[in-house]
Amino acid sequence: MLFYDYFRSSAAFRVRIALNLKGLTPERHFVHLRHNEQRAPDYLKLNPQGLVPTLVEDGATLTQSLAIVEYLDEMHPEPPLLPADAKGRARVRAIAQAIACEIHPINNLRILNYLADAFGLDPETRAEKWYRHWVAEGVAGVEGLLAAAGTGRFCHGDAPTLADTCLVPQIFNAQRFDCPMDAYPIAMRVFETCMAREEFAAAQPSRQPDAEA
Amino acid sequence: MLFYDYFRSSAAFRVRIALNLKGLTPERHFVHLRHNEQRAPDYLKLNPQGLVPTLVEDGATLTQSLAIVEYLDEMHPEPPLLPADAKGRARVRAIAQAIACEIHPINNLRILNYLADAFGLDPETRAEKWYRHWVAEGVAGVEGLLAAAGTGRFCHGDAPTLADTCLVPQIFNAQRFDCPMDAYPIAMRVFETCMAREEFAAAQPSRQPDAEA
Repeated sequence: MLFYDYFRSSAAFRVRIALNLKGLTPERHFVHLRHNEQRAPDYLKLNPQGLVPTLVEDGATLTQSLAIVEYLDEMHPEPPLLPADAKGRARVRAIAQAIACEIHPINNLRILNYLADAFGLDPETRAEKWYRHWVAEGVAGVEGLLAAAGTGRFCHGDAPTLADTCLVPQIFNAQRFDCPMDAYPIAMRVFETCMAREEFAAAQPSRQPDAEA
Repeated sequence: MLFYDYFRSSAAFRVRIALNLKGLTPERHFVHLRHNEQRAPDYLKLNPQGLVPTLVEDGATLTQSLAIVEYLDEMHPEPPLLPADAKGRARVRAIAQAIACEIHPINNLRILNYLADAFGLDPETRAEKWYRHWVAEGVAGVEGLLAAAGTGRFCHGDAPTLADTCLVPQIFNAQRFDCPMDAYPIAMRVFETCMAREEFAAAQPSRQPDAEA
């Protein structure tokens, strides 16, 4: 198993958490997004979207972090990252997608770069009027989902799921951009519970081999 | 089963296709996004993100279109919307997420409105320098995924899957914004194959009870 990773990528961070929870240790290649290595022809052959993460196993190339985590969960069922019941699975997937479809894509590096290149927005305007705006709107929605029945010590019940693999990288990013988080006590409580576990803590950007200051 | 829908929503369009493929006809409520009905307190109790679609069944409230389609597929397995093998499922989910996580969220109504409100971008600038830019970048990535082994008459094999429920609404939107699509022959061929089927055609915005000119 070969894993294409970048320390700062939230999407790769999700997969790192899942790999740690499953006790899997693939060979890792690092794709430096700020050096634009994701646009190198050889990498685009693997991942035509020019994104990380990518997982290669048994001649198959897997892309998109949530699809990769579900694949890992199907191939390595213990510990499960999805609940045993259909409604629980739908809830976990919805929380994951509320982050992966509604917050993260709007605030990722290529969007922030484009806001600078196409519209001349300076870093402080991007942080204040774009990044923090969408974190506030998005995490409020996630907090609403977490306020419903089903949440336990983790996003769903008392063990980590796919939802927690998405929540933790999102909160990490929000803190990096100094987003105020006081209005999201359930999300922050789950985040702290997750980060107390080594599988989550070891997946954080600063502890990766390719980490930079 | 109660389905909260809006004719123009791509995310609701995905679920309408899945419902039609499964032969399911839930009771429908329409949430007018341009009239901001998704922010009404009663609707926010159901869907704290203030988004459509929402599906209510057996006292459970389901949100996020891909989670809803997977739930429908688990509860009503015929015809299947995911392949029987794990690598196939990972590929279908990746294509779906390449659209639902990388193209659609960046171009949806709330982002376009915010570009006008916060940065004063006029409609033509938004269409040209935002909408068409992200469609071009995103659909090129999807075309790359479709160029790999696995694609048949549909995105994966010769029957519709979760991937096709995402592809069709995305192409619809791209055409509505006059995005040039000549560079994506596989995506367009699959789109035409899908639209020749009544389950897809009947789900299109103009054929919904709440459709407007």
